[in-house]
Amino acid sequence: MQILAAGILTPTEITIFLLALAVLLGMARLLGEVAKKFGQPTVLGEILAGVILGATVLGNVSSETYSWLFPEYLADHQSGNDIYYDKLDPNNDNQPYTVGAIDPSTGEAITLTIPDKPGAEVDDKADGRRVPSLVKVGLESFFVLSVCLLLLVAGLEVDLSIVTKQGKAAVAVSLMGMIVPFVIGFGVAYLLANNAADWIGYNEDSDKALPFALFLGIAMSITALPVIAKILLDLNMFKSDMGMLIMSSAMVNDLLGWIGFAMVLAMITPPGEATMDLQFVIFATLLFVGFMLTAGRYLANKTIPLVQAHSSWPGGILGFVFVLALLCAALTEWIGIHAIFGAFLAGIALGDSKHLTARTRETIEQIVTYIFAPIFFAGVALRIDFINNFDFVIVIIVLVVAIIGKVFGCYIGAKIAGLSKRESWAIGFGMSARGAMEIILGQIALSFELITEELFVAIVIMAIATSVIAGPLMQKALDRRQQKRFADLLSGKAFVSRLKAVTRKDAIQELAQVAATVTGVEATAISDAVWEREQTMSTGIGHGVAVPHGRIGGLAKPQLIVGVSPAGIDFDAGDGVAAEIICMLLTPTEDQLAQIEMLRAVAEAFSDPARHRSAVEAEGYTQFRAAISVGSAPAH
Amino acid sequence: MQILAAGILTPTEITIFLLALAVLLGMARLLGEVAKKFGQPTVLGEILAGVILGATVLGNVSSETYSWLFPEYLADHQSGNDIYYDKLDPNNDNQPYTVGAIDPSTGEAITLTIPDKPGAEVDDKADGRRVPSLVKVGLESFFVLSVCLLLLVAGLEVDLSIVTKQGKAAVAVSLMGMIVPFVIGFGVAYLLANNAADWIGYNEDSDKALPFALFLGIAMSITALPVIAKILLDLNMFKSDMGMLIMSSAMVNDLLGWIGFAMVLAMITPPGEATMDLQFVIFATLLFVGFMLTAGRYLANKTIPLVQAHSSWPGGILGFVFVLALLCAALTEWIGIHAIFGAFLAGIALGDSKHLTARTRETIEQIVTYIFAPIFFAGVALRIDFINNFDFVIVIIVLVVAIIGKVFGCYIGAKIAGLSKRESWAIGFGMSARGAMEIILGQIALSFELITEELFVAIVIMAIATSVIAGPLMQKALDRRQQKRFADLLSGKAFVSRLKAVTRKDAIQELAQVAATVTGVEATAISDAVWEREQTMSTGIGHGVAVPHGRIGGLAKPQLIVGVSPAGIDFDAGDGVAAEIICMLLTPTEDQLAQIEMLRAVAEAFSDPARHRSAVEAEGYTQFRAAISVGSAPAH
Repeated sequence: MQILAAGILTPTEITIFLLALAVLLGMARLLGEVAKKFGQPTVLGEILAGVILGATVLGNVSSETYSWLFPEYLADHQSGNDIYYDKLDPNNDNQPYTVGAIDPSTGEAITLTIPDKPGAEVDDKADGRRVPSLVKVGLESFFVLSVCLLLLVAGLEVDLSIVTKQGKAAVAVSLMGMIVPFVIGFGVAYLLANNAADWIGYNEDSDKALPFALFLGIAMSITALPVIAKILLDLNMFKSDMGMLIMSSAMVNDLLGWIGFAMVLAMITPPGEATMDLQFVIFATLLFVGFMLTAGRYLANKTIPLVQAHSSWPGGILGFVFVLALLCAALTEWIGIHAIFGAFLAGIALGDSKHLTARTRETIEQIVTYIFAPIFFAGVALRIDFINNFDFVIVIIVLVVAIIGKVFGCYIGAKIAGLSKRESWAIGFGMSARGAMEIILGQIALSFELITEELFVAIVIMAIATSVIAGPLMQKALDRRQQKRFADLLSGKAFVSRLKAVTRKDAIQELAQVAATVTGVEATAISDAVWEREQTMSTGIGHGVAVPHGRIGGLAKPQLIVGVSPAGIDFDAGDGVAAEIICMLLTPTEDQLAQIEMLRAVAEAFSDPARHRSAVEAEGYTQFRAAISVGSAPAH
Repeated sequence: MQILAAGILTPTEITIFLLALAVLLGMARLLGEVAKKFGQPTVLGEILAGVILGATVLGNVSSETYSWLFPEYLADHQSGNDIYYDKLDPNNDNQPYTVGAIDPSTGEAITLTIPDKPGAEVDDKADGRRVPSLVKVGLESFFVLSVCLLLLVAGLEVDLSIVTKQGKAAVAVSLMGMIVPFVIGFGVAYLLANNAADWIGYNEDSDKALPFALFLGIAMSITALPVIAKILLDLNMFKSDMGMLIMSSAMVNDLLGWIGFAMVLAMITPPGEATMDLQFVIFATLLFVGFMLTAGRYLANKTIPLVQAHSSWPGGILGFVFVLALLCAALTEWIGIHAIFGAFLAGIALGDSKHLTARTRETIEQIVTYIFAPIFFAGVALRIDFINNFDFVIVIIVLVVAIIGKVFGCYIGAKIAGLSKRESWAIGFGMSARGAMEIILGQIALSFELITEELFVAIVIMAIATSVIAGPLMQKALDRRQQKRFADLLSGKAFVSRLKAVTRKDAIQELAQVAATVTGVEATAISDAVWEREQTMSTGIGHGVAVPHGRIGGLAKPQLIVGVSPAGIDFDAGDGVAAEIICMLLTPTEDQLAQIEMLRAVAEAFSDPARHRSAVEAEGYTQFRAAISVGSAPAH
């Protein structure tokens, strides 16, 4: 098949490009949701999607399908051979090309020298670079854009004003939380690189032990703002003093970590790239960072109202945010660090402005988090064989250093700031989550050939493992439990779509019947307990919701039973509105907290009248569940 | 500079890619807003951005900058020469390569034959295809994705259920509105292609007169749903019977038009592409359309609640919509028509479901309309020289045929449906708007080499011209005027950030002083008239807003004066709340409608309490304007 003349991509290339995006996004979203269902970070599922679709699984099961869907190189359409460029000695621009040819007179194979002829072939394919497949270039460009937008969103989340409010405590936690893991990480990496390179996956030929060790130090010292925010939200601690302290420490941490990483990248010349002036790169980087954190923030804050006043909404502000992020990204890429730094700093400058509305942030965040990020993280894992590059020693060393360094550093910082032992441990565990940011950092280091694929795999595993354990460990340290949301309590078996009952007592008995089949406790025991409670004081909480409840002996765990009655059942509510949604809350006698938690979840679920309405009108369990889920997600 | 080994794109390529996106988006958004300020369609500004940044202006002013920012071909990094592939006779796969070379024994230039060597050069460059620049491939992939998402959004807007409600009238208008322009367009194109090819820009060598004429017929008969929706919203007619009739006619029109276009594409083989089985393409297309409009709609409607019930919100549903659109796009591209048809039909199937919430649609629509669309339309105009390809004869013929065919066709249809003469003309004018969809259609026809660049330029001009005149002509036919929005009435000169007055009378006098300088009418004349009116009945309309008003003799046009008083001034409102925002409405004595229109605009502007609050707290005019603009945009 030949190439479409006027278009750039052939129909086949377009088909594969769109299909590859669809498959990456679909698989990543699906596994992301599965990970979430099991209480794990979404990025775990997204990486797993890449592992399954990529070199690790699909590449081994059916390498033909894999290289059809994610082609590597551009092939000549006639001969099927790959096309090469840049095959000659980079230090000698005028060296003529060498080709194998047939001597026209003798018919024998000879080697010829061709002056100034492009694309001719030399003998050793390893000397030249093949032109990548155009589908791969399309995907790769999309990944570049995605990672910039991911860092833009990360930047938008950084609020420097809350950092200054937290003052000394935040500084102590974040500094100690960076210095300790940095020193340990740097020390271990430098020592191993020079003495036992295999143990840390250091490529001795690269002769870059110092930047390598600096990189690992920084990789150990960064933290993952979104993961931490999510944990704090789950524990209902986001707005607490401690939540704010952790958030602001993490922000300082992030900012310093990324600046440090930019410095390391400035130190090394990417493979094949012309050597850059180190002093220029570092000077330009610091100048840009300084500008964005001062004048940039000020100007962004002044410009946003101007844009919103004189343009259509939200087109003006969305365009402004994207253009600024792309421009800053192009600038830092040109400086010689990486595009993501520009996008990150643009995010910080824009995000600090109170004029940027929540609605605008939400739109950007949702598209980036749910469309660009899944494709990017699945793409990150695509080309790496996670099984062949899994090295037990490296994984263990990275994991141990990452956890010990961070937990102790933050613990010490928190103690200095005057927090209790228990709180200090909690901060240490929380801050040790690395999440998606660590994976991005590793991916860039890999593309700069600063680390090996083995070390990259170890870093990905460490990033995910620390994110997985941070929440539970923090919960344990603080003895708090994760807030349940209404949807988590719902189940199809404990749901009655249309209650037959028309009175309070009948409704309780009807729901108790359902509860009995779900819990194994006798129906009469349940209805008696709930009815007894109901008689002391009615449980209509207004707005058409009733919450009959009771403590039930022998119940294994808290149980919610929901019944819907479009006609309404009188539960004697304060506002006189008959209950359309009856949530029966059953809790074990010994669990003191469960009941109040469930009540909170019910109240939250039906706080929005529109959601309440569509829940009542829902036909069957799926629609009901959809109705209460829609629009109820927290920002993180 | 050499290539980055591990990455696909060099730092320079990444820099240019991001910069090109930033410049395209920035310029397109800016000029889009300017166009909007002048009451013109946004796409006009977006196309203009491409004209300025592309071959037309920048390419002529500084061709070096132009080809640096939007590079065409991949060059060998050593020699600087372009890299070719597919250079040999496509019908002879085994033909050996020919290269120019230096005979090693004599040192003379000779021509050699090399068996099975890829990428070698032949003499005539026109025979081979150069490998496109990787930046261009990245941008082109982004454009492909963008146009699919644009058609997804167009599909989401089609609501087949309102079509069935409109019944016969919609069918009459849309059928006559398609058949008449199609027949005229097809006839003119076929006649000219065979007799005066220059007049219509038909390339006689292409030997595709029939598909060419069919294409032009369809190009004349489609319509632009979003432009029409915008016009109807502006005239406050969207929800009226006539508005619904126009919308549903346009939807039928769109659906049939795009299916017809798919059929035309099925008829032609894109240049260089292997000939496809026409019967297969047509059969597969009809099967897919049939499936999506029946079972696809049904399944989408059943699946959406499932997705929303069992996934995080809005991540689950956003992912589902994008994945389905990408999959359908890949499918139709594979069938051999074009990716956009799949995305469009996915949009229709998904959009018809009432379970897809307004919030989800809004998020997708905003990102596509304000980020993907501007980049795409600027990109469309980038490579075309609009000046050199401007052919007066072709432009006039296309314009005349487009307007006459559509206006008369719809007029006849509307008369058949029993509408009045005046309404029938209005429908004709409204439906003649072609907008962005026509440009997409032309761009695909161009990439299939079905039309020349001259005809493409004419189609773009026709699309924009019809969109520009549709609104005013429709207004005129119906004798309606465009609804003014509050922001349109505001001006910095007629604004008092902090009123000194503490009483009603003082406030009126203070605002009258400002009004006098703006309008040239004497201050006392204004304050007397307004105060007289105020005494007959107080003008506090509640929620902290007051609207003192008066009809002023000698006033040239309606004038709004706004004053803010954070302390509040008692305007004796029904709810007892002191007025913080005082909007003085002055209208000429003879203008009967102006006052009620302004009142409506004020009420609309302050209907949202949050917006009201930030307006009161605004410091100065810009912040006030931003406050009332944020969140106030209609969907179209």
